[in-house]
Amino acid sequence: IQSRLPDVGTTIFTTMSALAAEHQAVNLGQGFPDFHCDPALTQAVSEAMAQGHNQYPPMAGAAPLREAVAAKIASLYGHRYDAASEITVTAGATQALLTAILAVVQPGDEVIVLDPSYDSYVPAVRMAGAVPVRVALTAGSFRPDFDRIAAAITPRTRLLIINSPHNPSGTVWTQSEMLTLQELLAPTNVLLLSDEVYEHMVYDGLRHESVSRYPQLAARSFVVSSFGKTFHVTGWKVGTVAAPAALMAEFRKIHQFNVFTVNTPMQIGLARYLQDPAPYLGLPAFYQAKRDFFRAGLADTRLKLLECRGTYFQTVDYSAISDLPEAEFCQWLTREIGVAAIPTSAFYGDGFNQCTVRFCFAKQEQTLRTALERLRRL
Amino acid sequence: IQSRLPDVGTTIFTTMSALAAEHQAVNLGQGFPDFHCDPALTQAVSEAMAQGHNQYPPMAGAAPLREAVAAKIASLYGHRYDAASEITVTAGATQALLTAILAVVQPGDEVIVLDPSYDSYVPAVRMAGAVPVRVALTAGSFRPDFDRIAAAITPRTRLLIINSPHNPSGTVWTQSEMLTLQELLAPTNVLLLSDEVYEHMVYDGLRHESVSRYPQLAARSFVVSSFGKTFHVTGWKVGTVAAPAALMAEFRKIHQFNVFTVNTPMQIGLARYLQDPAPYLGLPAFYQAKRDFFRAGLADTRLKLLECRGTYFQTVDYSAISDLPEAEFCQWLTREIGVAAIPTSAFYGDGFNQCTVRFCFAKQEQTLRTALERLRRL
Ligand SMILES: CSCCC(=O)C(=O)O
Ligand SMILES: CSCCC(=O)C(=O)O
Repeated sequence: IQSRLPDVGTTIFTTMSALAAEHQAVNLGQGFPDFHCDPALTQAVSEAMAQGHNQYPPMAGAAPLREAVAAKIASLYGHRYDAASEITVTAGATQALLTAILAVVQPGDEVIVLDPSYDSYVPAVRMAGAVPVRVALTAGSFRPDFDRIAAAITPRTRLLIINSPHNPSGTVWTQSEMLTLQELLAPTNVLLLSDEVYEHMVYDGLRHESVSRYPQLAARSFVVSSFGKTFHVTGWKVGTVAAPAALMAEFRKIHQFNVFTVNTPMQIGLARYLQDPAPYLGLPAFYQAKRDFFRAGLADTRLKLLECRGTYFQTVDYSAISDLPEAEFCQWLTREIGVAAIPTSAFYGDGFNQCTVRFCFAKQEQTLRTALERLRRL
Repeated sequence: IQSRLPDVGTTIFTTMSALAAEHQAVNLGQGFPDFHCDPALTQAVSEAMAQGHNQYPPMAGAAPLREAVAAKIASLYGHRYDAASEITVTAGATQALLTAILAVVQPGDEVIVLDPSYDSYVPAVRMAGAVPVRVALTAGSFRPDFDRIAAAITPRTRLLIINSPHNPSGTVWTQSEMLTLQELLAPTNVLLLSDEVYEHMVYDGLRHESVSRYPQLAARSFVVSSFGKTFHVTGWKVGTVAAPAALMAEFRKIHQFNVFTVNTPMQIGLARYLQDPAPYLGLPAFYQAKRDFFRAGLADTRLKLLECRGTYFQTVDYSAISDLPEAEFCQWLTREIGVAAIPTSAFYGDGFNQCTVRFCFAKQEQTLRTALERLRRL
């Protein structure tokens, strides 16, 4: 068999979770909470099943869920998507990303991704037969470098993928960066795919700069979000995508022949649960407390804490401790110190090494406490 | 935007379900049950959620579910797949089909589909940048015509897609047909994608000729099944694929960047429910009774009943009643008679018309009774 993705192995998240399990390490690698979700949410899904919501939902998603999502976006970001033609429910954000790429990218087109980038972007671009063009975020700060982005745009550029709050670095784009992006794209035909799965995890009073806030950007964008991240149920695999009707029509053509539809009782349960905004409006305070606890525990160590303004990830620079490359440092940390992390190099095409690793702080206080005790031995 | 699938509209299933709702017609179009699933199954999922099975499962699927599936295949068909490396859980059968195609097909390769064919096959082949080659099943009988299949194989043929029990016709491949296929493929490198989502719906004492029964075929095949069909929960979107490890390794490369994983609590619930084989072993008797009831109700009408040996679909020839093309006949039947059906022409690339339509009999007796009363007016 000729491989369609010859360079692809197992994702770093699977690899590190397996290694953590093998060594009974505290798993701060793969991004998922180790605490329970709100019982009201599982209760809503159980009720939906008991009420018989177990057959195919509409292809684009259950109407109450699409309406709840459109209402949430309108209230948070001031942009009203049409629930019927501009919102689609997906089997998680990853499926939304691949489907959007397959929908608008032709073989031979170029797609710009900003490194460090989530590890599904480039393989998804390759699956579409397109050419990934990797542009680095500014070293050290992980902020967008608009000169480099502008220089990467060619007549073959079809799509730019952005991600704020940013995984792995925890940076959050500013209004001024969004406006610069808007200006940069204005004279082009480049479409935008905005991965906003951490939209509700922004700290220190900053606001999430959703593409939906910027009508000129929204008009050319797919905006992706994830209930798994927002409601502490990463295993449920329900996400959403919002886009103008013309883009969404193409998205749905692919979607209907990829997954066709998404789990009905989960959709009905989520639609009911979304009626109360408190759970997602409370997330910044909830996760900021965890971030602060985790950072405080590392403050007087030789691990240097990089800025974290969003996501549930904290990146640290370990260069004062070790000169191992990141992947090997993560292996060593898991085996010898008993804490699993993710190497930042996994988010680059060339394995670029900057002696930083990513910890997930979406954990119970006791888990973080154990990890900190171990890390403080470093 | 340049469309990646310019010829694709909304699936016929969505279209007919919407029309049925609009006209309060009995919906015997889209294939889904109108009765509840076993409460023990929803209970198992509720328990899994309450126990905290809500975070990412392993990428290939929850281990207990993969083991249960491998055990079921071994006990039914005598082939033991390795649960670790040869079984993957998918977000429904449709996602399994696209993922398998993306995994092994290169742009420019040819993929043979047998018409009438399920409406996702050809768009999935196109998404992979490959060339669909449509070969008709024998007109009237819907049986495979091996001379035509042999004639369609070229050095560019990478994959053949088969489907038994067959949607829409309800035919079931025989052992002799499987052996002929095995012989035909033996000297070639053609891979096989076997859509067996109706594996547990075979009637009149026939047995399901799974590709898994034929080691030489299984060695080159992806075998796809669906819990949605088997357990009356089409909205849950959980399926499985079995394949030799080398093929599965390629499948998982695509899978991990398409959906990454599949709903955890559904997987855990299904794994527990699968411990009892009675629910799926009882399906032939359960659905055969519905088939017989539906056929008896049409026996003395001018609708001619074609053979139905499997699936939950009954195809009828309406040429004694109308010479409308199938799609228009289905519209008329929905609007004027109050029963929705699916035109067989929707399963052909060229809209081939043979004056047949498909009814779904996976319905409560009362639903079938109402539909029959209306159809008997024809
Ligand atoms: C899809 S598995 C990884 C989860 C995640 O988003 C991350 O850890 O970055
Ligand atoms: C995926 S919607 C259609 C369900 C089905 O398999 C059919 O009706 O043929």
